[in-house]
Amino acid sequence: MARVTITQVAAHAGVSVASASRALNGLIASPQTVAKVQHAAEELGYVADATAQSLKRGRTNQLVYAVADIGNPVYVEMMTAVERVVSASGYRLVLSSMGTLSSSVDVVRDLSRGYVDGMILSPLRVTDELLAVLAKTPVPVVVLGHLPDSQSIDNVRADSRTAMRLVVDHLAAEGRRDVTFVNGPSDTTPGAFRRDGFAAAVAAHPEILARSVEAEDFTIGAGYAAARRVLSGEFRPDAIVAANDLIGIGVIRAAEDFGLSVPGDIAVTGIDNTELAGVVRPGLTSVDLGADERGRAAAELLLQRITDPARPAHTIAVAPSLVVRGSSLARRPDPASSPTRDHTEHTDLNEEREAG
Amino acid sequence: MARVTITQVAAHAGVSVASASRALNGLIASPQTVAKVQHAAEELGYVADATAQSLKRGRTNQLVYAVADIGNPVYVEMMTAVERVVSASGYRLVLSSMGTLSSSVDVVRDLSRGYVDGMILSPLRVTDELLAVLAKTPVPVVVLGHLPDSQSIDNVRADSRTAMRLVVDHLAAEGRRDVTFVNGPSDTTPGAFRRDGFAAAVAAHPEILARSVEAEDFTIGAGYAAARRVLSGEFRPDAIVAANDLIGIGVIRAAEDFGLSVPGDIAVTGIDNTELAGVVRPGLTSVDLGADERGRAAAELLLQRITDPARPAHTIAVAPSLVVRGSSLARRPDPASSPTRDHTEHTDLNEEREAG
Repeated sequence: MARVTITQVAAHAGVSVASASRALNGLIASPQTVAKVQHAAEELGYVADATAQSLKRGRTNQLVYAVADIGNPVYVEMMTAVERVVSASGYRLVLSSMGTLSSSVDVVRDLSRGYVDGMILSPLRVTDELLAVLAKTPVPVVVLGHLPDSQSIDNVRADSRTAMRLVVDHLAAEGRRDVTFVNGPSDTTPGAFRRDGFAAAVAAHPEILARSVEAEDFTIGAGYAAARRVLSGEFRPDAIVAANDLIGIGVIRAAEDFGLSVPGDIAVTGIDNTELAGVVRPGLTSVDLGADERGRAAAELLLQRITDPARPAHTIAVAPSLVVRGSSLARRPDPASSPTRDHTEHTDLNEEREAG
Repeated sequence: MARVTITQVAAHAGVSVASASRALNGLIASPQTVAKVQHAAEELGYVADATAQSLKRGRTNQLVYAVADIGNPVYVEMMTAVERVVSASGYRLVLSSMGTLSSSVDVVRDLSRGYVDGMILSPLRVTDELLAVLAKTPVPVVVLGHLPDSQSIDNVRADSRTAMRLVVDHLAAEGRRDVTFVNGPSDTTPGAFRRDGFAAAVAAHPEILARSVEAEDFTIGAGYAAARRVLSGEFRPDAIVAANDLIGIGVIRAAEDFGLSVPGDIAVTGIDNTELAGVVRPGLTSVDLGADERGRAAAELLLQRITDPARPAHTIAVAPSLVVRGSSLARRPDPASSPTRDHTEHTDLNEEREAG
């Protein structure tokens, strides 16, 4: 399976290498030569080398979406939206993970060296080093995640602050008074914004006693472990706000292991409104941060930047919306007045109550 | 953010372009020139163009894992295993989806044109056209999925036939007698193998009445829709075998909507043993097809093929194992003799009963 060379194609076609090259590159050649060379190329499985071609054209037709955590379905949802937009413009999208095995700085440095015509980045941590590398990157970049306002980089962000307010307002309205926030690592960008958002949201509710803990990661397993610590503690909250759906699902499983009923004994909420939130039981109340819309917006910003490198940087913020499911309904249901507020759920995969 | 050229670096350093080029490429140049040029390159954010460099070296240091369905967590698990192996050998791994937006043939043709040094492919359908393209591909290829035995392509496969036997033997032992198989599309490779495997497995159990239906896709939503059709029908099975975990989770949700208890009224099983199988309630009995092991084996085959292009093609089959959870326990539990066989599950995220 060694690569077939143009020399072999020429020999097989019985023409000179120069003729074969002209024929394959659409330059002047006789129709007979073109036919012979194309036939030979097909028979031998010759494919023009993209490295050489992209050097000539200065473009690869390839874009990359680089994400920190491919295990979180919200990034898959954003990738799907990105791909839909860029493939309609003739680009191929590849995904690069910049998780534990490779730093985001390395990924940006590597891929911008001629492999791609542009990149969309969802980093978990925006360090000064990463910002410095982004500022010098020779290909267009869009960050799908929060950036400091001073950066002149195209940027699509969720609104974590409003998301936390929607959740806390909802829990307060449902009568919850002792609310613990299970954050992911607060040295990440989403962790920092959700921590600040939770603090601001509970400050508006003096009736709520608020506490916070950190899970080691934004995963089901880490959420489960953190919730076990919370529920083993001296103070047992009547609601747990999770920093994303995966942590929230871990919290529901931990509550079950402690013999607690969700939402009877304890309410649980997530963030991201992934498909999983509608699939677990009880259904997980969550905040839709517009993953599909954010992916679409990032892809469009990148295509516009490629077309017009000189245009000013845009920042787009997508508004969140609360999706209430069974995991957070009122603490002491009154079946007479509110027949839907009990534990039995006939949820299907399409219907949710939408609020906020 | 236009790309900085070597001409600009040379001008900034006050040296000739030839000197700058020699300095940047590690050729003979005075230490002062090297220092000046490196300083200028750093200040301007110059990065050597990988397209030009890979042309020189004939390699990109990039490998691709191309999958049909990035929404299925089993592929994310395999990608993680692939990445762990190849990154230890200095390769960067990118992921390419070959779903609805681009055919697997296009992806192979495109990426093998100088973008990558090798590829691992998980196609949903192995067509003659795809096999023809793979046979002529100028870079090493490993197929992570079933290939016809006559192909001389490195190949890592699950054992769907044994998987179906493990599931059907288990259900028979638990007293199920009316078993419906909810397959994914049977014109896909996994769909065809699981259909044949189910047929062979039930043939060994004349006491079982077997039926089959097809979901439109290997997804939760398609499994839910197919199960609704099954449960609306004249014959209600006492067990549903799903072709993968996502379909199985959709089946559990549909059974719930029909007021059926799982496993009391109906048992449900999945395949792939994804993290989700342990997270839904009841926990979903599933077959572990060794996703991590398959990813690792595919990565190692690819690295060996790159090192030794002439070695004969290898086929590696990874053995499955049954993981029993609450969704498939015996129909009429006898609490006195079998205290664990009831509906309450104190499952945690690590412990499962393993059998088979």
